[in-house]
Amino acid sequence: MAYDAIETPFGKTDWIVGGAATYAAYAASNFIRPINQVSIVGYDFAQEEMDELTRRGVNLEGVEIVSDKKSFFWSGRYHMDMNTRDTLVTDLNVLTDFNPIIPESYQGSEFVMLGNVLPSLQISVVQQLKIRPKLIVMDTMNFWMDNALPDLKKLLTMVDVLLVNDSEARQLSGQFSLVKAAKEIQKMGPQYLVIKKGEHGALLFHGDQVFFAPALPLEEVFDPTGAGDTFAGGFIGHIAQTRDVSFENMKTAIIVGSAMASFCVEKFGPTRLKEITKRDIDGRIRQFVDLVNFDIELV
Amino acid sequence: MAYDAIETPFGKTDWIVGGAATYAAYAASNFIRPINQVSIVGYDFAQEEMDELTRRGVNLEGVEIVSDKKSFFWSGRYHMDMNTRDTLVTDLNVLTDFNPIIPESYQGSEFVMLGNVLPSLQISVVQQLKIRPKLIVMDTMNFWMDNALPDLKKLLTMVDVLLVNDSEARQLSGQFSLVKAAKEIQKMGPQYLVIKKGEHGALLFHGDQVFFAPALPLEEVFDPTGAGDTFAGGFIGHIAQTRDVSFENMKTAIIVGSAMASFCVEKFGPTRLKEITKRDIDGRIRQFVDLVNFDIELV
Repeated sequence: MAYDAIETPFGKTDWIVGGAATYAAYAASNFIRPINQVSIVGYDFAQEEMDELTRRGVNLEGVEIVSDKKSFFWSGRYHMDMNTRDTLVTDLNVLTDFNPIIPESYQGSEFVMLGNVLPSLQISVVQQLKIRPKLIVMDTMNFWMDNALPDLKKLLTMVDVLLVNDSEARQLSGQFSLVKAAKEIQKMGPQYLVIKKGEHGALLFHGDQVFFAPALPLEEVFDPTGAGDTFAGGFIGHIAQTRDVSFENMKTAIIVGSAMASFCVEKFGPTRLKEITKRDIDGRIRQFVDLVNFDIELV
Repeated sequence: MAYDAIETPFGKTDWIVGGAATYAAYAASNFIRPINQVSIVGYDFAQEEMDELTRRGVNLEGVEIVSDKKSFFWSGRYHMDMNTRDTLVTDLNVLTDFNPIIPESYQGSEFVMLGNVLPSLQISVVQQLKIRPKLIVMDTMNFWMDNALPDLKKLLTMVDVLLVNDSEARQLSGQFSLVKAAKEIQKMGPQYLVIKKGEHGALLFHGDQVFFAPALPLEEVFDPTGAGDTFAGGFIGHIAQTRDVSFENMKTAIIVGSAMASFCVEKFGPTRLKEITKRDIDGRIRQFVDLVNFDIELV
């Protein structure tokens, strides 16, 4: 949970709520409640944002509030293609003190999403869970591959699903072909691998099975910030709602995650996620069905 | 119809048959025969290649053989990502004399594919057809947008389907968003637009409708040369076979084209296209069905 300043070819905002846990919670709360949030914020994190999350069934008991520091702050500028961005400012602030403590009331959580953070902290969260969840999904990034690879590899043996983008999958596996990369990564632990390709969609790998979900072709991508975290929230939200961790259901979960991400990019930060209704979400999922549906007769 | 020298990270060939018409004919001949080929070659074009095409139902009456010049020759080197390449040599040779003449026996052809060549030559072909075909599909490239835009724009008013890649769609329309680009290009003439995104699949636009076909995730792309032309051949081959020019059937045609292209890239030049059987093609199409098929219940 954080604050961001974002500049895109279409506009600029100096101060908007953000952070992986915020996006994931907003997305997942459409499918399952409560969301047991674990995070850390500073004295500057607005009470109204906390209230809005609470109203949506997000339990904030596991969110530490530090009274003498600011929240994590990130500032970035997107290029015209929206796939590349420059980071202008990264103020860790409270994040330097982050030592996630799982509240007793969170024990027994069956579906766990580990947002992108220092791998040792993700490990700590898993180790605090007294009952092995039905599904542990993790996100990470190239920075930890460069700077915390031993911890990251340890964590990979503890989780079920890894979410990464294509360049991260290539870096982690040392393979250029995503099919080969997926095989290597499954050997490292996670039996399911989701490779996100931004505007080019996402791939799900499991053993020799593969599923592809497109991104919805949009007239305009206004702000891609948080799209990956929103995807993750929709993905695990659908799985938690259906309590079905099969490959077949994960395919649907990827479509749900893609639909949620397609809303996220329409406005700055999580603005659009706060507006949408169940009806909007169902309509968007129908667009995905139409987008890929075709008939063929094979003799 | 041409010869190529190709270098990829996986190997090198100094002399292999190529050319848009060759790839398109090999692909389409799996679905419809005869293929009425129009092209030009030099004295160096091997008789065995001609014989192989004839054996597959490719009518070569419209292929001019120039006895004192060589065939068009292209040489290129692919980078590791296989999406970018350097052209090393372009010897136009016979292509400088190309003035396509449609044989009388070709009149009445219902499904016409205009391969990528000087737009004035593509216009000439259309103008020679005494009966308007049921469907005219055209390919082109950025070079003609830079150097023959007035002819290209004239041609666009004469065709039904335009095939381009994403950067060409952006250049032609002046729009970055592919959704907006598709709207602009449809205003220029073609009522159907296929935007090819290489390893990221292809989009079909028609009015407000859009369909997405993924590329098959492959362990290895050995040589992408001709993949776009093979896609085009599979696309129009399926439409000619079914004689159905509806949007619904074009969706299937794009899957068929994608399946054919996925074979093409497995070996140098058209080598793999010469090997595959109907059974291979059906199996590959089934992989595409599995790749995108998902179940979702919306209440």
